[in-house]
Amino acid sequence: MKNFKLIIEYDGTFFHGWQKQKEDRTLQEEIEKAIRIMTGKKIVLTASGRTDAGVHALGQTANFLCDTKITPEAFLRGLNSLTSTEIVIKECVLVDNDFHARYNVKSKTYMYRILNRPVPGALFRQYAWFIPKKLDIDAMDAAMLHIIGTHDFKAFEGAGSPRSSTVRTITSAGLEQLEHGYISLEFKGNGFLRFMVRNITGTLVDVGLGKICPDDLMGILNSKDRSLAGTTAPPQGLCLMKVEY
Amino acid sequence: MKNFKLIIEYDGTFFHGWQKQKEDRTLQEEIEKAIRIMTGKKIVLTASGRTDAGVHALGQTANFLCDTKITPEAFLRGLNSLTSTEIVIKECVLVDNDFHARYNVKSKTYMYRILNRPVPGALFRQYAWFIPKKLDIDAMDAAMLHIIGTHDFKAFEGAGSPRSSTVRTITSAGLEQLEHGYISLEFKGNGFLRFMVRNITGTLVDVGLGKICPDDLMGILNSKDRSLAGTTAPPQGLCLMKVEY
Repeated sequence: MKNFKLIIEYDGTFFHGWQKQKEDRTLQEEIEKAIRIMTGKKIVLTASGRTDAGVHALGQTANFLCDTKITPEAFLRGLNSLTSTEIVIKECVLVDNDFHARYNVKSKTYMYRILNRPVPGALFRQYAWFIPKKLDIDAMDAAMLHIIGTHDFKAFEGAGSPRSSTVRTITSAGLEQLEHGYISLEFKGNGFLRFMVRNITGTLVDVGLGKICPDDLMGILNSKDRSLAGTTAPPQGLCLMKVEY
Repeated sequence: MKNFKLIIEYDGTFFHGWQKQKEDRTLQEEIEKAIRIMTGKKIVLTASGRTDAGVHALGQTANFLCDTKITPEAFLRGLNSLTSTEIVIKECVLVDNDFHARYNVKSKTYMYRILNRPVPGALFRQYAWFIPKKLDIDAMDAAMLHIIGTHDFKAFEGAGSPRSSTVRTITSAGLEQLEHGYISLEFKGNGFLRFMVRNITGTLVDVGLGKICPDDLMGILNSKDRSLAGTTAPPQGLCLMKVEY
């Protein structure tokens, strides 16, 4: 038995998220199908975590176990020709059999892109959240500091997806103003609850719009009450950048 | 009579270029039609220059003369709601009646985006030229220096579009390596011949692939012979960034 690790880039616009479903087009299903065509075997592809419908990835990681003579190089070429252009396998390597793409995650890095200017973008529309009203960047920066560290992030967890523990550690969080009105928010941590990045981003945008004070972030975290946090940012601005093991 | 200046962003993927044609969807036609709906008048919209099919713009500039009470602010809102999402009017201001978007151009800045890595991109596919073979960036950098200055760029002019003079001045040209394998080439000059940026870029890529020596650029320029220059880079990597007056 061999264990193959994949690094995958995808445009989430065209998928109902990572996880296989009965009806809709998903990333897991399309890549598993391509592996099945190459190997003749029904394998299970395990990702570092699900991404939701519309969310992108530049560096999603997944692994699958398979008894095969196919080389990693042949999988790279074959899977890229069998999947659609919205999915690109960037790397395929052999790893130890005990490597698990989800259990072994040390850190994940997410990026959220906002377009903040009076008019929307004609380019890159499926990769950013358009906010016409001027955001207070300094306030957002100040609020972001509160989420760094180990906290119970229950207030930022999506409904209907309870975890045994909602404590996570955010090792870094920063904001960068780019050209043409784009702003990128980067979050690195040991794990993220469902909708956590989008809920934090929505709350930070509410801070930027003056609806929430920067220092209220601490109180929202401590409350563990989802109803006190801000809106959920839409999926198209979010991208899973990197998974480290 | 009032003179309105527009700054326009567009995703060229969906258009057969700027200039109005009988059959195909063009930018000029779609924006002129929106102005006609607002004013009831048939006006002519003059751009800083045509862009070809598939070429993008973050800062195309155009102007139109019109006897109207409609304010620039109302044009901005109205045109953005009447045109499709692939066209965004970023600014609308009143200018002197003798302002002409093409004749008065002092400089134009173009950016060309290349993706240079073994595998294509799943994201941003309509905004870059994918080149899987490793490019020699130092060689491209060295070759780029030769095109800066005032030269006869006849060797880089597209066929079937003769100009009275093919002498142009490139004031700056530079290359930047970005994350994830992207490379951006920026060209600023007082004017560009048809296909000139794409022909220069294609030639620079031939330099990067070792097909042409960096110092041969001087000889190609002096030859004024299109057949000595390299391939024409595809349109989707090109973007008109800025026009200055």
